[in-house]
Amino acid sequence: MPGRGEATTSANGLAASTHTSDHTENIVGGKKDSSVESFLKSVYDLAVKEGWEKAQDRNELVVKFKSPEELRKVLNIEVEDCPASHSDLLQDLKDVFTYSVKTGNPHFFNQLYAGIDPYGFAGQIVTDVLNTSIYTYEVAPVFVLIEQYLLKQFCEMVGYPDGTGTFPPGGSYCNMLGMNLARFHKFPDIKNKGLFSLPRMVAFASCGSHYSNKKNATLLGLGLDSLISVNTTSNGKMDPVDLEKRVLEAQEQGSVPFLVVATAGTTVLGAYDPLNQIADICEKYEMWMHVDGAWGGGALFSEKHRHLMDGLHRSDSVSLNPHKMLMAPLQCCMFVTKHPNTMKNCHTLHVPYLFQQDKTLYDASYDVGSKVLQCGRKVDAFKFWLMWKAHGRLGLSDRVEKAFENSRFLIDILQKTEGFKLVTDPECTNVCFWYLPKIMRDTDWNLRDEKFCRKLASVAPQIKERMTKKGSMLVGYQPVGNLPNFFRMVVINDKVTREDMEFVVQEIDLLGSDL
Amino acid sequence: MPGRGEATTSANGLAASTHTSDHTENIVGGKKDSSVESFLKSVYDLAVKEGWEKAQDRNELVVKFKSPEELRKVLNIEVEDCPASHSDLLQDLKDVFTYSVKTGNPHFFNQLYAGIDPYGFAGQIVTDVLNTSIYTYEVAPVFVLIEQYLLKQFCEMVGYPDGTGTFPPGGSYCNMLGMNLARFHKFPDIKNKGLFSLPRMVAFASCGSHYSNKKNATLLGLGLDSLISVNTTSNGKMDPVDLEKRVLEAQEQGSVPFLVVATAGTTVLGAYDPLNQIADICEKYEMWMHVDGAWGGGALFSEKHRHLMDGLHRSDSVSLNPHKMLMAPLQCCMFVTKHPNTMKNCHTLHVPYLFQQDKTLYDASYDVGSKVLQCGRKVDAFKFWLMWKAHGRLGLSDRVEKAFENSRFLIDILQKTEGFKLVTDPECTNVCFWYLPKIMRDTDWNLRDEKFCRKLASVAPQIKERMTKKGSMLVGYQPVGNLPNFFRMVVINDKVTREDMEFVVQEIDLLGSDL
Repeated sequence: MPGRGEATTSANGLAASTHTSDHTENIVGGKKDSSVESFLKSVYDLAVKEGWEKAQDRNELVVKFKSPEELRKVLNIEVEDCPASHSDLLQDLKDVFTYSVKTGNPHFFNQLYAGIDPYGFAGQIVTDVLNTSIYTYEVAPVFVLIEQYLLKQFCEMVGYPDGTGTFPPGGSYCNMLGMNLARFHKFPDIKNKGLFSLPRMVAFASCGSHYSNKKNATLLGLGLDSLISVNTTSNGKMDPVDLEKRVLEAQEQGSVPFLVVATAGTTVLGAYDPLNQIADICEKYEMWMHVDGAWGGGALFSEKHRHLMDGLHRSDSVSLNPHKMLMAPLQCCMFVTKHPNTMKNCHTLHVPYLFQQDKTLYDASYDVGSKVLQCGRKVDAFKFWLMWKAHGRLGLSDRVEKAFENSRFLIDILQKTEGFKLVTDPECTNVCFWYLPKIMRDTDWNLRDEKFCRKLASVAPQIKERMTKKGSMLVGYQPVGNLPNFFRMVVINDKVTREDMEFVVQEIDLLGSDL
Repeated sequence: MPGRGEATTSANGLAASTHTSDHTENIVGGKKDSSVESFLKSVYDLAVKEGWEKAQDRNELVVKFKSPEELRKVLNIEVEDCPASHSDLLQDLKDVFTYSVKTGNPHFFNQLYAGIDPYGFAGQIVTDVLNTSIYTYEVAPVFVLIEQYLLKQFCEMVGYPDGTGTFPPGGSYCNMLGMNLARFHKFPDIKNKGLFSLPRMVAFASCGSHYSNKKNATLLGLGLDSLISVNTTSNGKMDPVDLEKRVLEAQEQGSVPFLVVATAGTTVLGAYDPLNQIADICEKYEMWMHVDGAWGGGALFSEKHRHLMDGLHRSDSVSLNPHKMLMAPLQCCMFVTKHPNTMKNCHTLHVPYLFQQDKTLYDASYDVGSKVLQCGRKVDAFKFWLMWKAHGRLGLSDRVEKAFENSRFLIDILQKTEGFKLVTDPECTNVCFWYLPKIMRDTDWNLRDEKFCRKLASVAPQIKERMTKKGSMLVGYQPVGNLPNFFRMVVINDKVTREDMEFVVQEIDLLGSDL
């Protein structure tokens, strides 16, 4: 890197002195504590300026795109034997901010997360610096109480008065827990004996469900063939008639149906599966019902929209990622089940080095790590607790309702604007639509016309490329089944306004009308 | 809470106004952006003062212990419908710091993590505020390049010139990946067909290996019976003779041996399994060799100690948690394998909504989420990168060597001091020992004497209770097999001095000599 030579030499000097020193206590990385604290302060100031203030300004770029090859040339990635100086590190960090995507920008609509909640950020700073693992009360007393309290709140919202749960690392992991508990609930012998002597067991999820269900089926040794895909109705919701048909087919083939994964807010189309109808079938055929509410589960926080999950209390386990619709910082995921003993018996082992049973200062049930799969576990609950306190439940409800309102406003514009066509009538706050460049607008809309579909499929990737290079916003796209590439606009961030919705439509038209 | 009534009322007022407002853009949680920024700054200052400065002062308490029942009374845990005021939140945060365990205190020796690395903390602030998921280059360009660079560095240290890897959430998860890849490598059909039509397959790990291997065997549908425990020699190292014997036994019973998990630094005794001898057996019987270096793998960073892992390059996968011996903040774990295609083929699915194959701006191989099990994934590599840059490799090496030196110094004192007895001659920086109160010192040392053992087993829990109540330090204890409760001192933090080692011995004697 030009201009770094001198600083590196001086850093080398510092390094050499550390390396030969007698580990003087107040020297870290060759720097004194006082200088380290001023470095920390500079990083914090940089983070607030670049990652908080500027990153939330819609007039700033969402991304300053460089290809991997170009970016490698600009960044000073290499690590060395000797320490870098604080000034070099700060320059590196400035580059990191410059070329990172600003997911807090109100024009970032690319994923199922967006925005920065300041209280979530503050909560992370606290858990970062207190640096502990939430497995025993002994090392995480405050966080254990807070986590258990939040899980109890969530259980009450779901309708599990005696439920229990955990904060796992990711929505895929939550679904994996649901699958694992369902299997153990059916065949407790699995814990010791595994699957080897058991009949084939099968799980069901809609074709619009998250791909983690497939990955989990392979991980758990069931295999992809054991996850049966259920058809959806035109709006992307699981078809309960098809579900029952497939359950019966599986039984006829000698398989044991053990699990239905219902989705509350599918990843692409945002559909809410009909929970009551699915619960009827689960009860009839004695299957565990897991509800993947990672994305759409946020609706539970709104009186107005929670009806989308009617029947939720009839399920056996539920997950919700506050890091999605509720804007908690990544990662923040909740998994709860109404079967606390199943969870405990499935996971608990005798682990005397960590979960001492002869400890005298508190009840061992506060060592919450015993009932989960992980050993070390990051404290993800605290930031959500701080957010919840800071906004109040009504504030979180406002946030969810604002996302719904904005997405409904977007639907209105899309329906009124030439060249845009909705894929479905969305239930959640992700809105899927096609864009037709001018040249396509006179052609008849015909998804059976191969040439038409090919052309349509090429539109979104080209607009995405232009959008990314320009950096004005980010919106994702994908095909689904036979439907060629369409945009998926995800509305989450509570800083998003109606004007931003109008901007999205205008910008896509601006970027793509000539295609 | 006394004194909070008034503030709550005013917070309620704010809440009401937010709730009825037209979502004015610059109001978050009922507070203006400028006031939010000043709140953030107060939290940062509090974190630095209480979580960084005071928490690292050995004259401060490691823990101000309260039982769950007492702590619940002191903390203001409840969340409300309406927002809390900033001043209430700050008071809550002060309480959080007061009653949280100070894992950064040089007298915290309780777990396989300790201390706070300021550059790690700074790195977390950056990834916290940039809040993105490391699955595509599109949303995490800088972090993808940095993560891939670090993994390449680690692969080179291990001796996997063409290796690949990821940063999973936790050491248990790393071992699970090793087991899953091993199984897929042997039987690629598992991905689709599962275990149902396959012969029983068995894995091997020493009786001193981490309990995650058991949990993973149940999760993967193999069952606890399929994880065969291998005896250790007197120092806690896997006995290769016993390993081969058990492999042959399993084969005779018609099982298929597919994996040996070797441990580099066992959880309690800190033993390094003999990698070359294990590799010989793995090659002979065509088993995957996974090395769990979560804890002791840090020795790789030291020229002086890396010989403990001689033969590592012959393994098939390795994990190392920089959040343990290298003092990265939790969570920070690396998993690498020398079989990139196995990892890719085992995990990759067709996921068009996230991993678009028709994108034009960069090669799809930069979408690193495709080759892992998770979907959303926290950026854990960046903080370690910043630490590595800040300290240089030599600085990290110093840190490891200092921990080894301190632990050797501790062993010396323990051997010289009346009432202390080492459990083994430790290889890593965890040191296990018994303490004998005065009354026991005249009795003959006899672990076959039931009464003696019962008394000995009662000592550590009582001292631990006194230590915790006093808050002067934290050290863990446990039994292993027939060995009654003993202390496990874990030496990591580079702020720890020889005087701290002397303090530990004196303090245990002070707390327990009268028992």
